[in-house]
Amino acid sequence: MNWPVPDIKPPCPAFRQSALARQAQLTKPPGSLGLLEDLAVRLAAMQRREDPRLDRPWISVFAADHGVAEEGVSAFPQAVTRLMLRNFLQGGAAISVLARQLDARLEVIDVGVAGPAETHEGLVLARAGAGTANFARQAAMAAGQLHAALQAGAEAAQRAAGFGADIFIGGEMGIGNTSSATALACALLQTGPEALAGPGTGLDAAGVAHKRAVVGRALALHADGLDQPLEILRRLGGFEIAALAGAYLHAAALGLPVLVDGFISSVAALMAVRLQPACRDWLLFGHRSAEPGHRLVLEALDARPLLDLSMRLGEGSGAAASLPLLRAACALHNGMATFAEAGIPAG
Amino acid sequence: MNWPVPDIKPPCPAFRQSALARQAQLTKPPGSLGLLEDLAVRLAAMQRREDPRLDRPWISVFAADHGVAEEGVSAFPQAVTRLMLRNFLQGGAAISVLARQLDARLEVIDVGVAGPAETHEGLVLARAGAGTANFARQAAMAAGQLHAALQAGAEAAQRAAGFGADIFIGGEMGIGNTSSATALACALLQTGPEALAGPGTGLDAAGVAHKRAVVGRALALHADGLDQPLEILRRLGGFEIAALAGAYLHAAALGLPVLVDGFISSVAALMAVRLQPACRDWLLFGHRSAEPGHRLVLEALDARPLLDLSMRLGEGSGAAASLPLLRAACALHNGMATFAEAGIPAG
Repeated sequence: MNWPVPDIKPPCPAFRQSALARQAQLTKPPGSLGLLEDLAVRLAAMQRREDPRLDRPWISVFAADHGVAEEGVSAFPQAVTRLMLRNFLQGGAAISVLARQLDARLEVIDVGVAGPAETHEGLVLARAGAGTANFARQAAMAAGQLHAALQAGAEAAQRAAGFGADIFIGGEMGIGNTSSATALACALLQTGPEALAGPGTGLDAAGVAHKRAVVGRALALHADGLDQPLEILRRLGGFEIAALAGAYLHAAALGLPVLVDGFISSVAALMAVRLQPACRDWLLFGHRSAEPGHRLVLEALDARPLLDLSMRLGEGSGAAASLPLLRAACALHNGMATFAEAGIPAG
Repeated sequence: MNWPVPDIKPPCPAFRQSALARQAQLTKPPGSLGLLEDLAVRLAAMQRREDPRLDRPWISVFAADHGVAEEGVSAFPQAVTRLMLRNFLQGGAAISVLARQLDARLEVIDVGVAGPAETHEGLVLARAGAGTANFARQAAMAAGQLHAALQAGAEAAQRAAGFGADIFIGGEMGIGNTSSATALACALLQTGPEALAGPGTGLDAAGVAHKRAVVGRALALHADGLDQPLEILRRLGGFEIAALAGAYLHAAALGLPVLVDGFISSVAALMAVRLQPACRDWLLFGHRSAEPGHRLVLEALDARPLLDLSMRLGEGSGAAASLPLLRAACALHNGMATFAEAGIPAG
């Protein structure tokens, strides 16, 4: 595997300093806007603007299927991936509703749904295959497939930048993908599936135990091949997870802030950071998922998400729900009066 | 004291059931939108609508001064209350910026700022006095002043209802008011100031210790008069805290959902619930403040706030920052496709 990991520059320290200085002059006790202050400062440094803004958010939702679904690791049948992809396009899914409400540009990418390709108005076809192979029995992907999936993500980030997006949100859909994300997280964090396997879309306790066993079996099967991040991704990954990792890396390389969604997206973010640590400074985290494995992945990323609302849907929905907080951070940073302007002593 | 506490009806159980049934049919795993599902259901029941909405939010910010400020319990001088009131009106304060961004109606009420009354375009004058008396030495208010402050809040709720508001947010400004809120919470929760006194706008450790001592002295002084909620409010309260309690009670009586802000507002909410327990069902909680006393007050109210961003500004800013989450909850509830509409098996 020789997929070229992009170079990533850090956010601009001069804009960061300037934003910190402005925050100290706004008419509020220092620090009293909490994380909203940090967010404004980080966005100013990433966007290289005195007045950070989020007027053109971009959402790419990657859909793909997972061979491991045949092990019975999901509460829903595999066909739901394709049906939900149509639902995204028709505007009926959660992320469709949120994108409309946020006035965000939403694109849907088939990066490898099982069965034949379908063309739809508004659907981007970037298929790395017709679903991955069952990683509990063999490697999920061939090297060329992994390359194609990473590249599909890179191209989404490039489309976002070309659109003039001011933030990139990635989402995913794929029946079975919490199993893939769990296996990837175990390999990256060098831990077993006990603390990471969870109910996904709604498994009961027996279902979670079965999923844990399937992931444990897969980790044993691939034990000799889990040293390098890209090889971990090839063996255990999903096309949509690889695409998200590729998208995050290229968004960061293009100077575009990234708003990460829940468990699966955060595993993709962890993969991206392992491939290129400089990516971390470009990542904001929208929410803490109810999926129990998310906690460990967030800790490994040293991430404090904005929301903790027991959401566990994916699609980018938690990130989208958090976007108004980033907008509030920008509005406050740009719109509040300074102590001098308001004629108030600064405490 | 004979301020008439209004009767409050519960939210509508039929609309609640109907909203629960709709949530179960939307194209997502059951429960996967977490608190956003509960919020939509609660708003549907409160608004008696199939399609809850938050198109006309109303924000009333009550400003008043506190005699206890002379004890040196704040990081800012008392004059800042008046200066910030002007800043609210001129559009430079955090709540001004958020109200504009949310397209919310913002009104500012002088319910008892120290010194002479000033008239300003857009300012509601409903002064219960020129600041309270120092509750560390005597009762903060006369009975007539308490009545006037409660009534100022009731009238704000009535203006909101008359405007056709679909949610009521209360905010406050008053140098010294975390001391008053701390004393009130101690009396209502029958605990000492140790766990409740905090830095407010930015006291250091010595300042917090002094504030704790001042509150402890006041609780000892008033020990024989802290049995009844209204008498507690009269002795220890601030005009703006009483106004918030009156506003919450009357908003609930008028069938208007309430979005509560941080520590001081939550103490007003606790007061309102002690006066009329049926008020609780109309309260949503926007955020968990960094002020340490908020935790105990939220526990007493059995409240799970939407945000936890280390904010500690007041003004209604945390509630306003959380409003987009309620709007997302409504949009998802109203706009998502059902399984039947999307032709997807329901798992």
